[in-house]
This record gives sequence, C-alpha cells and structure tokens, in this order.
Amino acid sequence: MKNISYNSLKLFAEEVFLRMGCPAKEAHEAAEVLLSADLRGVDSHGVARLSGYIRLWEQDRINAKPEIKIVHETPSTAVIDGDKGLGLVVAPFAMRIAIEKAKIAGTGWVSVKNSNHYGIAGYHSMMALENDMIGWSMTNASPLVSPTFSTERLLGTNPISIAIPADKQPPFVADFATTTAANGKLEVLKRKNEKAPLGWVQDSNGKPTTDVDALKSGGSMLPLGGDREHASHKGYILGSIVDIFSAVLSGANYGPWAPPFVSFLPLREDPVGDGLGHFFGAMRIDAFRPANDFKKHMDNWIETFRKSSVTEENDRVLIPGDPEREISNERLKNGIPLLNPVIEDLIKIGDQFKLDFKSYFKD
Amino acid sequence: MKNISYNSLKLFAEEVFLRMGCPAKEAHEAAEVLLSADLRGVDSHGVARLSGYIRLWEQDRINAKPEIKIVHETPSTAVIDGDKGLGLVVAPFAMRIAIEKAKIAGTGWVSVKNSNHYGIAGYHSMMALENDMIGWSMTNASPLVSPTFSTERLLGTNPISIAIPADKQPPFVADFATTTAANGKLEVLKRKNEKAPLGWVQDSNGKPTTDVDALKSGGSMLPLGGDREHASHKGYILGSIVDIFSAVLSGANYGPWAPPFVSFLPLREDPVGDGLGHFFGAMRIDAFRPANDFKKHMDNWIETFRKSSVTEENDRVLIPGDPEREISNERLKNGIPLLNPVIEDLIKIGDQFKLDFKSYFKD
Repeated sequence: MKNISYNSLKLFAEEVFLRMGCPAKEAHEAAEVLLSADLRGVDSHGVARLSGYIRLWEQDRINAKPEIKIVHETPSTAVIDGDKGLGLVVAPFAMRIAIEKAKIAGTGWVSVKNSNHYGIAGYHSMMALENDMIGWSMTNASPLVSPTFSTERLLGTNPISIAIPADKQPPFVADFATTTAANGKLEVLKRKNEKAPLGWVQDSNGKPTTDVDALKSGGSMLPLGGDREHASHKGYILGSIVDIFSAVLSGANYGPWAPPFVSFLPLREDPVGDGLGHFFGAMRIDAFRPANDFKKHMDNWIETFRKSSVTEENDRVLIPGDPEREISNERLKNGIPLLNPVIEDLIKIGDQFKLDFKSYFKD
Repeated sequence: MKNISYNSLKLFAEEVFLRMGCPAKEAHEAAEVLLSADLRGVDSHGVARLSGYIRLWEQDRINAKPEIKIVHETPSTAVIDGDKGLGLVVAPFAMRIAIEKAKIAGTGWVSVKNSNHYGIAGYHSMMALENDMIGWSMTNASPLVSPTFSTERLLGTNPISIAIPADKQPPFVADFATTTAANGKLEVLKRKNEKAPLGWVQDSNGKPTTDVDALKSGGSMLPLGGDREHASHKGYILGSIVDIFSAVLSGANYGPWAPPFVSFLPLREDPVGDGLGHFFGAMRIDAFRPANDFKKHMDNWIETFRKSSVTEENDRVLIPGDPEREISNERLKNGIPLLNPVIEDLIKIGDQFKLDFKSYFKD
C-alpha cells in the first residue's frame, strides 16, 4: 500500500489516454472522471480499472476517437450514439446535452447507446449542481444479478445517482448500486478472507449463501432487499428500471445481453442493440420554484435529518454524499492509497505506453 | 368477510363523494382512483380508507371543491397547487398536465403541493400507458420511517410507481413503498397475531424488533434494506428522493412536517409548506426511439425475464405488475372481498350521507 497524490495519478491516467489515441480534451476529461472514483473512495471504479479499459481498447471494443452524436431529439430529450467511445467521455458529453436541454425546456433527459463503462455514476449527476439543477445518472452493466425467484444472471449492479443542490449545506449526492452490496464490497471481503452476510449473494440453485466466491460457481448477486421477505423484488424493480431506461430506451444491449467489462469474456453473438447504455437527466430547479427558496428548504431538510436522534451504536445520521465528500477532502490532502497489485498494474501500463509510472509520484 | 362487486362499490364511493360536495366529474374520478386500489389488491388504500377522507373533509383539511391550478411552468415542467383537494382528484389532474407537456416537449414533470393522500401510486403512472408514454408517480406521506442510524420518524413510506408500455406483453408496472414492508403488511400481521420479520421495524431506541406494535411505543418503520449491512441507506435515499421531489420541489410540507392522514393527529403549527406533495412524470417513448421498436424490445425483455430458470421454492419469475393484474382480473369477476369491520364502516358512512349501503350490493 502506498499513497500517491491525486494530481500525479490523474496526470498519469491522462497521458495513458493520450497515448491510446484520445484527443487531448477527451483524455483530460476521461482522467478526471476516472480519478473522481479514487477521490470519493470508490476504489473499484478508479485507476484500478485503467487496465480494463486498455484491454477493451486493444480488442477494438473501445474507440479512442469516437464521433459521439445525437441520433434523435425533442425539446427535452435526446438519444446519443457513443460510437464505442470510452464511457468516461461519452457520459459527460451526454450529461452536457441534458443540461443544455434543461436550460431551455426546464428538464433534459438523455438515453445513450453504444457506450462502455462510464466510471462512477455520481460524477455525471454532480455536473448538474453548478447549474442549479438536479442531476440524474444511471447505467446498465455486466449481468451478475438474479431477479427475485430466478437463478439466472439477468441484470447488472445497475447504479443510480441523483445529485440535489442545497444552499449553505453541501449537496445531497446519492450514488448506489441497486444490489444489496456493490461488487467492490465482495472483493474487499475476499481479500480479508471473510464471509458475506446473507442477502448479498446466492448459489447456482438460488439458495442464499455466505460464500464470497459464489459467482465463480454459477451463483449470482442479489437485488437490494436480499430475499422476498425483505422485499428483494424492489431491488429487482430498481435494477430493471435502470436497464430499461439505459438500454431499451436508447437501443443498447439490455439484460443478459449487456456487454461484459472484462475483455476475456466474449461479446454475445446475438446482440439486441449497440454496446452498453446509460441514462441522464437534468432538472432546472427554477423550472419548479425559485432556486434560492428551494435551496434554503434543502438546507432545512438536511439540517433536520442530520441533527435527528441517533441509535445507540452510532454517533450521527449521515446525509447521502457525506462519506464520499469526507474521503475526498482527506485524499486530496494525503493522497490516494493504492494497493500493491494496483501499483504493479500501473507500472506495467506505464511500460506498455513508454511512461515511467514511478516518475509521477516522486513528489 | 363478503365479496362485493367492483361496480357497486365504485357507485357507492362516487355517491359519497358527490354528497361531500365534489363536482360530478371529480366524484366519478375519485371513486375510480380509490377503487383501483381494491381492484389491484392494495386493500389498505381502497374503500377501507373512505372514512379517513371523510374525517379530513369534516375538519376542513380536504376541500371538496378545489380550484386546482398551475402556479409555475416551463415547456417540460409545472408546479400545481391542489387547493387542499382530494389527492384522488388532484393527482390525475397533475398527471394529465405531465402527459400534455410530454406531447409537445417530449417529457412532462409535475410537482404538486397543497394536496392530500392520492390513493395508489400506480393508478396515476398507468395513465401514461395509453399514450405510449412511460409514467412516473410518487408521493410523500405521514412520517413513520427512520433514516438509517436515526430513531426519529422523518419520512413516510413514500412510494414510487413507474409504468412502462410493452407490445403484446402486458405493461411493466412497478408500484412499491420505499420501506422494507408497506404499512398495510404490518396490519395484516397484527390481525393474524404474528410477529414481523427483523428488518421491518425498530423500537424507540433504534433496536431491530419483531414487535408489530412497535410504532405504538415510539418505534418506527425501516427503509428498504432494513439495516446498514443490508443497505438500508439505499431505502433511506429512495424515501428521501421521493420526499424532496414531491415536497421540497413543489413547496409542500416535507420530512417530519408531512401532514398525517389520520384526522386525530393535529397538523403541525410550524408548517414548512402547503399540504402534502406528489411528483409525476410522463416520457413519450418516441421522444427517444420509435414506439413500436421500443415495445417490441420490451416484449423481448419481459419474455426473457419471465422464462428464466427459477429457484427450487418458486414456480415462476414475476414481472412487476403481474400479481396486481391477476388479482384485478379475479376481483372484476368475483367481487372485492371486504372484511367485516370495513363493511360496518361503509354502512356507517352510508348512514351519515343518507345512503343505504346494503342496497348497493344486492346484486
């Protein structure tokens, strides 16, 4: 484990994207989006994934010079074809369209096809905040999750992020997988050699299990709720909605057809659409009520929840976005902690692109 | 228990609303919305609640002749003041505005203040289906739910409904409380003298409990997920989003200020807005892609999920909306089963309004 400064890591990632052939502006943005995951503590979605993007690019599943374009639109909607570009670049492009639509029509809603993994959902939704808008971001993903009562992997961990501005309080930023636990949490347990709580995964027969390796033997992840008695059908609904809005609405691959992120899994030979799908929204606050009124009431909402009485085991009630903001502040100061395998991976990437990774963190 | 025909019950409810002073069209619509709950098997939200609406009307908390109006709008948004009208009437009014906006701008989003309980969320979202639109419906509600780590009741069971059209398949209709279990399920357990599964409620100290009466001694309902290990913070996020979209965006009362449905609880003396809030959306499918393409892919999506392999204990994978549609078909044929206390309640309502309830179900 070693801490490396956020800026150094971002410069390295930007240089890698440049050498993959990305135009300068897009390489810069892709690095910004990728590193926002490391900054916010979502380590599974940051530089640890850089090699995954490179593997897909080597197989021509990612296009470093995409012509991203609007293929259909109305005053408040658009569908975008990502041209197999990095999701890290396609997503902010789409979110900017949503924001522009909202400026004129009050809201903007953009469904995206032919894209790839887009980093953390929260980066994109948060783009709305500086415009006094509410931002939405969701994406479908590699199928790992079984619907309630099913043993097949038909959905991804399909995250939803919604960012809502406040006045003096920091914004409300929700960013969550629609499963009980995100995939990264299983990885953490594996590394610690611990078992998973019941309700996170099931085995290949659909029996609840604590085996963190259940997915390797045909098991699957469980929708938020975990089992029917605890309303896993609601998590299944949420994952389905993300899938339908991201992929059926745009014309991307949905459900079990969603293309895998890992390059060693082949693409399906019977696609039902183009690439992976995302969905974004921007809602101008003053399309509903004056932004200042809204933000003052959001302050009151946040303060009321934050100061409410806590259970014995806990010392405070959190507002969505609190933990990530605190980690960000800490990591901006002290650097981003990287595990040794991730560092080795980055050194290898450096070798591939004739970059001396170590020279980036001599600071 | 007695089965009473859907049409007879609806006529009775309509007559009651008329005698409360509702204009003919609104009385008709209110009865239609109210009875859709009984039809779809959500017994807690149907005629069993009729007396609750009457009690609020008697206290002047419900206005039988509201002037519902748009107070702010843009091409794709509106805020509506319900003028203390029956939510059963205010909600369809607002949903129609959302649909009209969507016809022109691609999507329509309507936040509502100064309303009351609006029946089942799913009635309103489903209004979009016949227009080849996706419908959204959500509402805040009496505070009964504690955020993760909190012991205070700050949120309602805040339901979300999303209705998505298909072609040959019936539509995908999700309608769910953002708690582990809806309040009505606790009532059912109480009647059977059974305990609640852990993860549904907590006691006044925030300890998990199986006591179905925990709410009577200062306890609260738990957000979807149940506890932190099973991601109750995600249910807390969902309930919060419903609250913010329904009430902070419109200028209604939010969080612990949401007015109670039961008339014996007083209104707070420090309101932060007007009445209860709702939020609706309508998205024209062909604002994204041709409606026929979309609906054919929805058929494929639904068929793929429905025919997937099932776990040992179950015989099929359900699509959201399946159970309610099946109950509807059965109840249209065989009538709506009413418990004796509900029948007695309706007889009393009949007496109050000089209506012979029994004459309505001689068929």
